[in-house]
Amino acid sequence: MCGWRQRRYDEAVSETLRLALTLAYDGTDFHGWARQPGHPSVQQCLEEALFTITRETIRVVVAGRTDAGVHARGQVVHLDLRAAAQAKLTVKDGASRLEETVPRRLNAVLRRTAAGAIRIRSARIVPPGFDARFSALWRSYTYTVCDRSEDWDPLRRRDVLFLETPLNVDAMKAEALSLLGLHDFLSYCKPRPEATTIRDLQAADARRGADGLIRIHLRADAFCHHMVRTIVGSLIEVGSGRRQPGWARERLEARTRDASTRMVAGHALVLEEVGYPDDHESALRAASTRARRTDDEAD
Amino acid sequence: MCGWRQRRYDEAVSETLRLALTLAYDGTDFHGWARQPGHPSVQQCLEEALFTITRETIRVVVAGRTDAGVHARGQVVHLDLRAAAQAKLTVKDGASRLEETVPRRLNAVLRRTAAGAIRIRSARIVPPGFDARFSALWRSYTYTVCDRSEDWDPLRRRDVLFLETPLNVDAMKAEALSLLGLHDFLSYCKPRPEATTIRDLQAADARRGADGLIRIHLRADAFCHHMVRTIVGSLIEVGSGRRQPGWARERLEARTRDASTRMVAGHALVLEEVGYPDDHESALRAASTRARRTDDEAD
Repeated sequence: MCGWRQRRYDEAVSETLRLALTLAYDGTDFHGWARQPGHPSVQQCLEEALFTITRETIRVVVAGRTDAGVHARGQVVHLDLRAAAQAKLTVKDGASRLEETVPRRLNAVLRRTAAGAIRIRSARIVPPGFDARFSALWRSYTYTVCDRSEDWDPLRRRDVLFLETPLNVDAMKAEALSLLGLHDFLSYCKPRPEATTIRDLQAADARRGADGLIRIHLRADAFCHHMVRTIVGSLIEVGSGRRQPGWARERLEARTRDASTRMVAGHALVLEEVGYPDDHESALRAASTRARRTDDEAD
Repeated sequence: MCGWRQRRYDEAVSETLRLALTLAYDGTDFHGWARQPGHPSVQQCLEEALFTITRETIRVVVAGRTDAGVHARGQVVHLDLRAAAQAKLTVKDGASRLEETVPRRLNAVLRRTAAGAIRIRSARIVPPGFDARFSALWRSYTYTVCDRSEDWDPLRRRDVLFLETPLNVDAMKAEALSLLGLHDFLSYCKPRPEATTIRDLQAADARRGADGLIRIHLRADAFCHHMVRTIVGSLIEVGSGRRQPGWARERLEARTRDASTRMVAGHALVLEEVGYPDDHESALRAASTRARRTDDEAD
């Protein structure tokens, strides 16, 4: 009996498993997602926590590389757990339910090492073809602005942009909607060599909440570097009356990044969610996206 | 004509005016309200900003001295502006509307010196008998708790208490209501010599919001030192099932501070509002409260 159970266990941990983690983070004290020598990054904190619980060096692949100060509620990464690491996690916890064990143990470490700034929301075993970056169908972001001094709460100073200028939210929404669809967003991107700036903006909205704050939601297949913050900057130009309605669309069609480009600060931006197809389509999607986009782009 | 206007102006600024300021602050980076040598405090930041705009040393009197890490949305202070300071403010701005000028100029300074952590919400000229501390009829506080890991947002780690234990909010509300009224809150206070611990708890509530967070509201004529945080600690003891319903009331009646006292962290506590009577009653109220309470208590 014991021998039989042992064989089953060995089989279960004999192959590499791919895990997708969904995580939230407060980007305030990080120099962005990506590792940089001498600066704290979300990636470094997460990979160090993975080392602490597995004693193996594990690299993660991220869905959307966020800039310094940018936050996330639904960031996604994938990583591969080799048999030894699986065994270490499952043996210690006396159960093979990695989807529960990994978030719990990572969160216990991150509470200490990142003071709660990073939280793993869930883990899921995914097929080997799943790729957090290239399987993604879309990313959605929220940008939050306070334009009324009476609504200004200092407790929100790390995730809300405070402006002294009152904004016309309806005008901002109309501008945002005018950008919907598949376009070359060169005017709204910090372009990189050899990388396309054609993106599909799938959803756009701007509305004032019950708390008086304006929230701008944008969803696209992927975003170029600085694209969300530059679109929001343009919406604010029109919402404040400094530019005429229609200006955001004019900028889009001009296909140029010049002195009239306005980019807002990163601290009020949150990566909300990343959308994926069903598991069996995921690997196919990853292969086709990888072929279409280069490795140098932001997402 | 010019002479007449000049006389009117001189008269207006010839006497000391008392101003009440309502302010909000993020207490994260302060060692509490009160000045302490070598540590940043809200009081010090505010008084330095007052010096910057008036070039006079002005002391403020606060309604509720908050502990390290505690925040405020509706803190109140009073201060006296002598004629010279009034003249400086009104001359520079070309208008004598101090109620607009003072918040605007203080906020401009505080944005630089406190990185937006303190915001003056309004200023009001009050009668000379008004006292921010002793005229107050009540103070209200909110304490926010997250007891479900799926609702845990790292962006709220500076103003929400995160617990791994699920809480029964109805049980907590019942405990809170059992403390209503005029009692000796010794079991819930850090007592100070010669100071009464009798307080009137006027309102109490605990409820779960649409965001999944539990908010505990407490309102009293005044609070002793650590009183809100110790009451919340007791509610959590019962809400988590570690103590039986009725325990909070038992603690109250025991009138003792012992090893079973539970106090929660300060960072999830916000001073929401301070209530005052109408102006003509305010001075009378200040005189009677001052006589009843000693200077050493917290509020």
